[in-house]
Amino acid sequence: MKKLINKPEDVVAQSLGGVAAAHGDLVKVLYNPNIVVRADAPVQGKVGVISGGGSGHEPMHGGFVGMGMLDAACPGDVFTSPTPDQMEAATKAVNGGAGVLHIVKNYTGDVMNFEMAAELCQAEGIEVVAVVTNDDVAVQDSLYTAGRRGVGITVLAEKICGAAAEKRMNLQQVADICRKVNDQGRSMGMALTSCTVPAAGKPTFDIGDNEMEIGIGIHGEPGRKRMNLQSADEITEMMAEAIISDLPYKNGDSVIAMVNGMGGTPLIELYIIYNKLNQICQAKGIKIARNLVGNYITSLEMQGCSITLLKTDDELTALWDAPVHTPALRWGV
Amino acid sequence: MKKLINKPEDVVAQSLGGVAAAHGDLVKVLYNPNIVVRADAPVQGKVGVISGGGSGHEPMHGGFVGMGMLDAACPGDVFTSPTPDQMEAATKAVNGGAGVLHIVKNYTGDVMNFEMAAELCQAEGIEVVAVVTNDDVAVQDSLYTAGRRGVGITVLAEKICGAAAEKRMNLQQVADICRKVNDQGRSMGMALTSCTVPAAGKPTFDIGDNEMEIGIGIHGEPGRKRMNLQSADEITEMMAEAIISDLPYKNGDSVIAMVNGMGGTPLIELYIIYNKLNQICQAKGIKIARNLVGNYITSLEMQGCSITLLKTDDELTALWDAPVHTPALRWGV
Repeated sequence: MKKLINKPEDVVAQSLGGVAAAHGDLVKVLYNPNIVVRADAPVQGKVGVISGGGSGHEPMHGGFVGMGMLDAACPGDVFTSPTPDQMEAATKAVNGGAGVLHIVKNYTGDVMNFEMAAELCQAEGIEVVAVVTNDDVAVQDSLYTAGRRGVGITVLAEKICGAAAEKRMNLQQVADICRKVNDQGRSMGMALTSCTVPAAGKPTFDIGDNEMEIGIGIHGEPGRKRMNLQSADEITEMMAEAIISDLPYKNGDSVIAMVNGMGGTPLIELYIIYNKLNQICQAKGIKIARNLVGNYITSLEMQGCSITLLKTDDELTALWDAPVHTPALRWGV
Repeated sequence: MKKLINKPEDVVAQSLGGVAAAHGDLVKVLYNPNIVVRADAPVQGKVGVISGGGSGHEPMHGGFVGMGMLDAACPGDVFTSPTPDQMEAATKAVNGGAGVLHIVKNYTGDVMNFEMAAELCQAEGIEVVAVVTNDDVAVQDSLYTAGRRGVGITVLAEKICGAAAEKRMNLQQVADICRKVNDQGRSMGMALTSCTVPAAGKPTFDIGDNEMEIGIGIHGEPGRKRMNLQSADEITEMMAEAIISDLPYKNGDSVIAMVNGMGGTPLIELYIIYNKLNQICQAKGIKIARNLVGNYITSLEMQGCSITLLKTDDELTALWDAPVHTPALRWGV
């Protein structure tokens, strides 16, 4: 196992220590339970927006804490759901009296623990609404998941809901926006290589030198099929076709498109994928109104990528364009 | 070779196509010769700032073209110096009548070709000054380089010189700022794995499962030594010590610190490195005034990282903080 780490059991805490040291102007990091909280939380009168999940997907979620995006994130152990006490602590830390939205990726452990945390907080008088993201078109059920997995749309939902909350929309409105983003978003991923969870010390799965996995999950869960390596254009076509036909996205639609790296794929390759995706969308009359190309929801050092499309409109695009200031995403400020 | 590419010979052009499609509001991409130019170039009365080098180090340099940073970048083939005609075309494209600064990383081919381009442009009446960066403390001479290699400080120099030019400093002033940044900057890198140049199809170098290379160059050139894998803290200490003792950086200094990923290393690990670097600097009384943690000057899919320190002052920090709007670096706008 080749990694820039110390002891496997210290990976999350020491990485959070780095986040705190690098971004103390934006976030504070609290330990036991571990949460990353916006430096000026709670913002009175604003809906709090939190998310969380296993570590190893950085910058998601801790890198998205700050003005205009998340109020807090709950980082679990690597590829392991955070605990209800993390989510409870985060909810309380960001409660400014207007309620708290939980954005939950659809993994069984995450959903269950966020539900427990919501009940605990509601019992103490904090209004909580949870929205579960489930945008991965690859498979219906998967390891750790009943129904579709929540993946890339979560990044876009966090940005857009954060902007909605910043505008002082109320909890129901922010939750409605989140559901709309999830409903209009679809994703799919693929991998060239496995990743290695530090505590496991060996690759999550085996894959041949000439193989790739289409439709892979962000923890290396099996996707649609294992096949021989294809060209970037062919890979992009397979993923784009699966995504576009699913909603479906149609001639005349405007979308926000994300080409996301899994952590070990260089940017030069992600732009080759984006180049082809743009051509495919153009040919179908789908206009890419906004885009993100880079590492946003990763799987440790896995080589591969994912594509996310979100059908957008004036409301969502304006919320997308609103100022954001987090460690990983920043504009307008 | 596992890569998200089509034909190896199309990697650079298709990746540039993706950049143009994704960032057409910020840059335009011209082909034959290939250059990435700020969308509103030339900016009349402003010093033009350009750089360039082999592709495979993205986002450097094309990702740094835009308001407040580079006016143009010249992407060569992967790990291959751009040609003089690219540099000449870029210089002419950004000449707004106030002269053009060439920021050149110290590699023999880059230096030679930028010199030829400067002569051609000067013969046509464009004032050109070149500043060569050579911040890598690892080795004195290396493959492709006489003297120290130019690495991470180039990113910081491009940001700071871009801001200086935006403030309408004149060519000599911007060049002086660039020399100051280079003089006060030091870097060192390391790798856990090799990378594979697409056209070569096999790893640039062999490295054992339990080995790492300390002081590696951004093309995989040999560094100071090959040794058994160490912990993140030990690796950070080795690199930080080599950097800090070289300038030397002293008690009371303020620095801009960059922890840079080589392309295949996940963010969770880079923050572990930053966490330790921050502790080392604190213990020595060196204050990290600003920081960058992420992939900025990469080596394709290589796993590893580099550290860059720049001794800063009010002038440099203000230029660092000035607005920038490029594909890869954005703030204040």
